[in-house]
Amino acid sequence: MILRTEQGTHLTGPVLIVGAGLLGASIGLGLRARGLDVVLSDSSPSTEAVARDIGAGRLLTETHDAETNDAETHDAETHDAETHDAGGRFVPELVVVATPPDVTARVVAEALLTYPGAVVLDICSVKEAILRELAAAPGVVPHLSRYVGTHPMAGGERSGPVAARAELFIGSPWVLCPHADSVPEAVLRAESLAIDLGAIPVRMAVGEHDEAVALISHLPQVVSSLVASRLQDSPVQALSLAGNGLRDVTRIAASDPRLWVQILAANAGRLVDILYGVREDLNRLITTLEDPMAGGARLDMAQLMSEGNAGQARVPGKHGTPPNAFASLTVLVDDVPGQIAKLLTEIGDTGINVEDFRLEHSPGREVGLAELSVLPGKRQELTESLTQRGWKVVQ
Amino acid sequence: MILRTEQGTHLTGPVLIVGAGLLGASIGLGLRARGLDVVLSDSSPSTEAVARDIGAGRLLTETHDAETNDAETHDAETHDAETHDAGGRFVPELVVVATPPDVTARVVAEALLTYPGAVVLDICSVKEAILRELAAAPGVVPHLSRYVGTHPMAGGERSGPVAARAELFIGSPWVLCPHADSVPEAVLRAESLAIDLGAIPVRMAVGEHDEAVALISHLPQVVSSLVASRLQDSPVQALSLAGNGLRDVTRIAASDPRLWVQILAANAGRLVDILYGVREDLNRLITTLEDPMAGGARLDMAQLMSEGNAGQARVPGKHGTPPNAFASLTVLVDDVPGQIAKLLTEIGDTGINVEDFRLEHSPGREVGLAELSVLPGKRQELTESLTQRGWKVVQ
Repeated sequence: MILRTEQGTHLTGPVLIVGAGLLGASIGLGLRARGLDVVLSDSSPSTEAVARDIGAGRLLTETHDAETNDAETHDAETHDAETHDAGGRFVPELVVVATPPDVTARVVAEALLTYPGAVVLDICSVKEAILRELAAAPGVVPHLSRYVGTHPMAGGERSGPVAARAELFIGSPWVLCPHADSVPEAVLRAESLAIDLGAIPVRMAVGEHDEAVALISHLPQVVSSLVASRLQDSPVQALSLAGNGLRDVTRIAASDPRLWVQILAANAGRLVDILYGVREDLNRLITTLEDPMAGGARLDMAQLMSEGNAGQARVPGKHGTPPNAFASLTVLVDDVPGQIAKLLTEIGDTGINVEDFRLEHSPGREVGLAELSVLPGKRQELTESLTQRGWKVVQ
Repeated sequence: MILRTEQGTHLTGPVLIVGAGLLGASIGLGLRARGLDVVLSDSSPSTEAVARDIGAGRLLTETHDAETNDAETHDAETHDAETHDAGGRFVPELVVVATPPDVTARVVAEALLTYPGAVVLDICSVKEAILRELAAAPGVVPHLSRYVGTHPMAGGERSGPVAARAELFIGSPWVLCPHADSVPEAVLRAESLAIDLGAIPVRMAVGEHDEAVALISHLPQVVSSLVASRLQDSPVQALSLAGNGLRDVTRIAASDPRLWVQILAANAGRLVDILYGVREDLNRLITTLEDPMAGGARLDMAQLMSEGNAGQARVPGKHGTPPNAFASLTVLVDDVPGQIAKLLTEIGDTGINVEDFRLEHSPGREVGLAELSVLPGKRQELTESLTQRGWKVVQ
């Protein structure tokens, strides 16, 4: 059953997931929701137990038990000819390596050697370093055709299987980075995984991917940490004045340092090239601030801010939509149960679909602000319709 | 009628607002909503016309016309003894200077000299530079007792009267920075303005305020611009992978450079002191990335990330609540009109108050994720209650 070309794009399982953190457990949950047999393994017994308990799959350790000790306590599934070879060994269709970056190449190499019939992919957020390590690993090169590097663009600042959810990947890009020797069947199976989990497969070259994440993921991460770091010893009263600007800029500074040290180290060369540019701009800014009355100082500041405008305008909106794809309006609502539901019922009556909805209410005030996003062409119509029904549209 | 001590904390008007941009026009709208007589003035005729048209107040230019040319076309209000002196000159109770920072001190000085019975305040986001300029302005010092520097912590990356709304200040801090000679009546009137607009008055010393905003506002602003600037020439495909991390870090990079150059220049000394620290950390990070295998490199990276964790944990949540004051859960909803309203109706039935609500739906999928924030003690109860009603609570 080596590398069957599958008709259609769905996995059939079983799938072995090595590493049962946020991403590994979320993949398990998503595949289990599709009815696939998922087997989990993690170097931490407590992590894999939590992942099993939330329903992300059964444990590889228990699968081994079945083979050697106590066949009766396991269901028929584990003895299926499709999932075990003639010697009773477990045979996964696909191995997903979801371990931290530092050990990813080693685990991928082990999986390639242990499961000669399986496609093996990793989901590590850097790709070139992994491929380089694999190419240097003893005895692995002849097996590399079954390996595909991938990177789901999902996760965030939370970690561990407790934060896992089957829907984590829905609508997000999932980058596939086939290497020169990846066989088409392996790439197809990686693509099937992405599609089965609701993600959007995007093919990129390894180097192109690593350049991209240095810019759109690793740069904002380190800069967010640098800003947040400045807040360590600041007066509480200063922090009490903080608005959404500071909150948004520092949100991802809450990310796990252990994981990020590995990511940064693995993509160090590409990130540092970008940081040289940041340092140059920072030095330019510092010079203008040291003598703001100097000739050209203000022009330099304006230039820096305008360059920020130009870059920001290129960032796609939520859901990968182009910037400014939606128009927003804000409705004032009384902060009592039922009012929001009433508002949304009446919006539903208008037949206009709300693309995004956000409610914030103010402390100590019986009032909330509901921010609605709609297609730009629908904004005026919805504003009028809600105003007629007695709602206060404030913006 | 000089500096009457008012019983209670409400303004009675008229209030003159000089500068009819986002903040000036929002103050006008808020005071008009309370029934006060608001008079507007802006150096740009089109800006003041827009502000008038959205209902932020009547125009000072038209008020002057009334005095000199054509009394009959104006209503009785403009001839009230309370709003005009014996010579027929307009007499505001309060002048709010809402101009850009560069001209704020000059406009405050003019207002103090023109309206000897009025309290004058500004809402500029830096305070020491304004006070210094005022103290140096010819003939102004004897009048400074009627001046109070203030700073409402509201606004954001939008600008102009079109974005104005009466509710802009609700629930946000409004810093009052009385100086050594500010009379209590002036401070009281400034405080009344904040309260009348739904803000929370916070008294701080001028220097303390400027230190605070350098850290919580000016630092995230310039760093957001520095990151966004790096995106100017990046490939579109790289940007298409961007997630919420990049979006959040770069959001405020959309802010108006003309305004920000003035803010940065006016608080340059305090901001640059903080940026020296950022530069030191950035250099440390660059060194580790230049040789990530060097002894101590990874420890240094971990240290930087951990310091970011520590700072981020001190940032208050939305509404000024302590970090982690709310627990969140995510509910899967079909992306059809009526489903969200049904969800919120059923939440309303449980009697549990939702503190924050956010809906995101995925492109090309008939599914949305509703993220609800509730008091931590209510999370489990709501999860169970919704699950029983057939909702899929995914986290």
